[in-house]
Amino acid sequence: MKSPVVAIIMGSDSDLPVMKESAEILEELGVAYECTIVSAHRTPHKMFEYAKEAEERGLQVIIAGAGGAAHLPGMVASLTNLPVIGVPVKSKTLNGLDSLYSIVQMPPGIPVATVAINGAKNAGILGAQIIALQNKEVKKKLKEYQQNLKEIVEKKATNLEELGWRDYHV
Amino acid sequence: MKSPVVAIIMGSDSDLPVMKESAEILEELGVAYECTIVSAHRTPHKMFEYAKEAEERGLQVIIAGAGGAAHLPGMVASLTNLPVIGVPVKSKTLNGLDSLYSIVQMPPGIPVATVAINGAKNAGILGAQIIALQNKEVKKKLKEYQQNLKEIVEKKATNLEELGWRDYHV
Amino acid sequence: MKSPVVAIIMGSDSDLPVMKESAEILEELGVAYECTIVSAHRTPHKMFEYAKEAEERGLQVIIAGAGGAAHLPGMVASLTNLPVIGVPVKSKTLNGLDSLYSIVQMPPGIPVATVAINGAKNAGILGAQIIALQNKEVKKKLKEYQQNLKEIVEKKATNLEELGWRDYHV
Amino acid sequence: MKSPVVAIIMGSDSDLPVMKESAEILEELGVAYECTIVSAHRTPHKMFEYAKEAEERGLQVIIAGAGGAAHLPGMVASLTNLPVIGVPVKSKTLNGLDSLYSIVQMPPGIPVATVAINGAKNAGILGAQIIALQNKEVKKKLKEYQQNLKEIVEKKATNLEELGWRDYHV
Amino acid sequence: MKSPVVAIIMGSDSDLPVMKESAEILEELGVAYECTIVSAHRTPHKMFEYAKEAEERGLQVIIAGAGGAAHLPGMVASLTNLPVIGVPVKSKTLNGLDSLYSIVQMPPGIPVATVAINGAKNAGILGAQIIALQNKEVKKKLKEYQQNLKEIVEKKATNLEELGWRDYHV
Amino acid sequence: MKSPVVAIIMGSDSDLPVMKESAEILEELGVAYECTIVSAHRTPHKMFEYAKEAEERGLQVIIAGAGGAAHLPGMVASLTNLPVIGVPVKSKTLNGLDSLYSIVQMPPGIPVATVAINGAKNAGILGAQIIALQNKEVKKKLKEYQQNLKEIVEKKATNLEELGWRDYHV
Amino acid sequence: MKSPVVAIIMGSDSDLPVMKESAEILEELGVAYECTIVSAHRTPHKMFEYAKEAEERGLQVIIAGAGGAAHLPGMVASLTNLPVIGVPVKSKTLNGLDSLYSIVQMPPGIPVATVAINGAKNAGILGAQIIALQNKEVKKKLKEYQQNLKEIVEKKATNLEELGWRDYHV
Amino acid sequence: MKSPVVAIIMGSDSDLPVMKESAEILEELGVAYECTIVSAHRTPHKMFEYAKEAEERGLQVIIAGAGGAAHLPGMVASLTNLPVIGVPVKSKTLNGLDSLYSIVQMPPGIPVATVAINGAKNAGILGAQIIALQNKEVKKKLKEYQQNLKEIVEKKATNLEELGWRDYHV
Repeated sequence: MKSPVVAIIMGSDSDLPVMKESAEILEELGVAYECTIVSAHRTPHKMFEYAKEAEERGLQVIIAGAGGAAHLPGMVASLTNLPVIGVPVKSKTLNGLDSLYSIVQMPPGIPVATVAINGAKNAGILGAQIIALQNKEVKKKLKEYQQNLKEIVEKKATNLEELGWRDYHV
Repeated sequence: MKSPVVAIIMGSDSDLPVMKESAEILEELGVAYECTIVSAHRTPHKMFEYAKEAEERGLQVIIAGAGGAAHLPGMVASLTNLPVIGVPVKSKTLNGLDSLYSIVQMPPGIPVATVAINGAKNAGILGAQIIALQNKEVKKKLKEYQQNLKEIVEKKATNLEELGWRDYHV
Repeated sequence: MKSPVVAIIMGSDSDLPVMKESAEILEELGVAYECTIVSAHRTPHKMFEYAKEAEERGLQVIIAGAGGAAHLPGMVASLTNLPVIGVPVKSKTLNGLDSLYSIVQMPPGIPVATVAINGAKNAGILGAQIIALQNKEVKKKLKEYQQNLKEIVEKKATNLEELGWRDYHV
Repeated sequence: MKSPVVAIIMGSDSDLPVMKESAEILEELGVAYECTIVSAHRTPHKMFEYAKEAEERGLQVIIAGAGGAAHLPGMVASLTNLPVIGVPVKSKTLNGLDSLYSIVQMPPGIPVATVAINGAKNAGILGAQIIALQNKEVKKKLKEYQQNLKEIVEKKATNLEELGWRDYHV
Repeated sequence: MKSPVVAIIMGSDSDLPVMKESAEILEELGVAYECTIVSAHRTPHKMFEYAKEAEERGLQVIIAGAGGAAHLPGMVASLTNLPVIGVPVKSKTLNGLDSLYSIVQMPPGIPVATVAINGAKNAGILGAQIIALQNKEVKKKLKEYQQNLKEIVEKKATNLEELGWRDYHV
Repeated sequence: MKSPVVAIIMGSDSDLPVMKESAEILEELGVAYECTIVSAHRTPHKMFEYAKEAEERGLQVIIAGAGGAAHLPGMVASLTNLPVIGVPVKSKTLNGLDSLYSIVQMPPGIPVATVAINGAKNAGILGAQIIALQNKEVKKKLKEYQQNLKEIVEKKATNLEELGWRDYHV
Repeated sequence: MKSPVVAIIMGSDSDLPVMKESAEILEELGVAYECTIVSAHRTPHKMFEYAKEAEERGLQVIIAGAGGAAHLPGMVASLTNLPVIGVPVKSKTLNGLDSLYSIVQMPPGIPVATVAINGAKNAGILGAQIIALQNKEVKKKLKEYQQNLKEIVEKKATNLEELGWRDYHV
Repeated sequence: MKSPVVAIIMGSDSDLPVMKESAEILEELGVAYECTIVSAHRTPHKMFEYAKEAEERGLQVIIAGAGGAAHLPGMVASLTNLPVIGVPVKSKTLNGLDSLYSIVQMPPGIPVATVAINGAKNAGILGAQIIALQNKEVKKKLKEYQQNLKEIVEKKATNLEELGWRDYHV
């Protein structure tokens, strides 16, 4: 089994239904990953150690998801030089706007590569794009994936054109 | 000189023009404080140590100001059991709404006592109110302060009523 | 039975499903509290008396929850020198943004320690943190609580790592 | 001199540059008014008395302006049965959105007739419209005012059409 | 039967579940009203005639509810000198924020007395407060209504205090 | 069968439940249209060709619907001189505010005629209004449609007035 | 001189600095237009007549700009079957968000083709695109305009590439 | 001279004052880059070619900045498998919120790594972090940069502590 190059971490197991989409797409794209819970607020020491050791453990990209006052992605970014991808998880009261602002509005010096609210799938793809710069196998799978996306849409378009909107079923 | 019981920390010296209002009012209310810069993102280790040692150093309240993706107040709160007061500093692009959401929307278990955007003065008063629970001198000064606020408004009201709005100068 | 040191008040009994979380956590942390309904708009005289008498009745912290044009926390704060914690209750039309702005944006001189929208649990913890400054028993329980939070997350993390995300059940 | 039937109150003299527009238009429309400062947060007792005595003093409408966590209009409305008109004053950080939400989102039972952010002129006109229901002189002046508004616009329209936009000076 | 002094109009019958609360409270407060549909966009001519004739038909207050790009209250206000109360009806996509802005942000000269999103009950009460300035019977009922509100809250408060929050049922 | 003069395109078949309202109203108004899926992000080449060829294929108006970071309407507009109507489709996390901003805030030089969030019906009517400038049959149907709208509202108004709000069923 | 086919109307002459950009680009594109002030709120009768007579006067497109509670574009659209283009003018307190919502969120049946906040230039281009469907001269000028836009950007790109960002002057 | 591995592109030269910060930091971190203008809306064909050829030209990361309805980053991402970093440029009317939503809210399949509004410096650092995964020299410079950030803050903190806030000059 390959050693993981991408880490998927989340602030709470309640984020898993969203964050598992990162895992699914990374598997599909052939990228070895690990997946765990690291809470900036409830396990700050673990977060510190996790972030500090990530690089020497062979990780190359960290995907971090969190909601509300979402500090995990930015704090991890402050503790490593690896690229950190932040996933703003939709929150109950502010629909993830709080999560988005807490993650994307980082100060100069410490970037977080932010994707859409609940955009865990795209976080996985972005992670794979970074890995693909050094890995032809992943690059190839990404091209197939993108080609596949195109073909699905084209097929749906053909169906819609042939059936007409009244008979087309979404 | 009294040992500080309130700490005023901020993420950047660019926050000082706002955060100094906490210092001014604490002085006026006779509360010993210390004031320094601790960046969650640029000096995360210092932040960790500062927060962990705060209680044993005799501090009782921590006032933390930050802007944008403002993680300092919440991260400090995750590392201590002292009450932490957060000041969302007005940011250049989102007027401090990002700062406010990043500070106030903390998850269950780790509160931050949030005041208004740029509300550093109120952070100082709130700190003094907490200290006053054990300190009659501060309690007395708070009452005088509140009484004074009232008198200033009443005097302005009298002036406005007597002069009329055309001759009153703000 | 101990005399209450924390008051939990709310503008309407419709706020109780949110505000009872303050009561639950205060019980868990061993802080004596009282809990009632005080409406800024429907019972303004009661609010006045309640706020004015709070300190001499031995209360040390007031937790006030309200939704919409939420005036209760700020008005109580204007009538006492005790620290007042405001809980913005989620509203039907604006998701609690109106509640949040009405509570947190207090003018200089009258702070309200604001927590997250529907953050009544954190209001209780913040109240306990303030009480703990003079009460070693509460301080000890707070440390246990925080330790417990950490262990729950660590256990979940271990489970997730061992089971993998496909077999982990939130 | 006629006894005032409309009151113009504001939370701070810093609101006067906005609120004086209520006074100006009430004068123009021949409505007797009084104008003073009443702070919900700094002079809550005065606010109570002012609101409670308003009706028996002969006032028929109260215009209240405030900014930020703007509690004055709603609190006055909770203490009287007179119609209360609220003016959300533009605030420094949130452009008056906090003021607007704090004033307009009142709970069932206690209305505040809210006008635009900084809409003090319209508050005065609305006050006059209410007074005009019992006062033919004011009704007549309102009609003249509305007619005048129309003529000013029509004249500008004629000028613009004749001069063309290149030569028209705003 | 008394001739109506308050009109309740709405842009669409889909607004009726909200707007009927104006009718209910006006009945309770003994104010004669009429209720119909007038669409600014679908029946602009009817709106014009309705607004122009309102005053001579004996109406004294117009309550207008609308959602989305809500032009009815403002357009009616531009066609009459009667006080117009606007009710922003909650919309499907923007939760009534579009309705609120379209109604409250009127330009100088043409006020609309705006209440909360879906605040039709308060629109009725505000209408009654205006009518009560000339009608002692309505004034008396308003006082009873306000007294009743207070007693309901006080009774709930007593229940909550006696039962405790665990046994109190909302 | 007439050759289509209006195109209805959408970024995904998940937009069809919204976008089919454009098709329905165009049929009702007698405007020949075509309807397909063109994704700016998944089939960018198809989008390019579609937009470039639209004019010579005899299309006169393009209606484009998309959600989230909605680039389809603006990109199509950059590739043709035909009028492009954009429909912001309601998104899961930001209620279509992201769709609206992505479509309406086009830079100088490249307009998109934007309708309401989920406003596909109005997109169809707007398309018909443009076609009607050269087509008397469509113009006639638009007048009938508008007349019909008016009559439906008038009938509802009569019903509501006759039945009263208690017996009227929405 | 050609008879105008596009009308540019605005709610106030304070909108002229924005709206004149519609006039400038229409001139550049060879489209005959007229330009005047029509206020929905201050001259509602004139607005009615203007909108009702527009079509028979030979106008084909109406561009309407307004700010705040911006009712002009939607009301004009309710009174004509011509395509109406709405320009949300930036407002002082809410940056034009109120204008945008008041214009774009029209109910089913009455579309307004909305452009960006202060997007008067694009309103003019959109008007020209509609006119161009029947006018080859305008079509040709639109193509030249679009070609010109492209060339300006390409030239700037070449300059930036040759000079480097340090020596390039915006 | 090294062949560029990072591209910095922007929609307009008006974005250069923001986007040059990407160039400055990439130079400081020893990453070869190129910088030009590519407009999604004004030069769509160039954008297509640029994005399609980027990978074979040896580029590894594309940084794209744009404001308003900002389509450049997302469209480039749809045309390449390279990681694309999006910089939302602050816009005149909506403060960059439109830019942010247009860039970050990409649909599943096509990620854009979004940084803060005007966060071009962080875009450069993120680009360097990705390059550093294969380039020890850049990795080393990143570590020095991060160390330097820390030291600057520590020095400021020491100054503030020694001078006190009254004598410290920002």
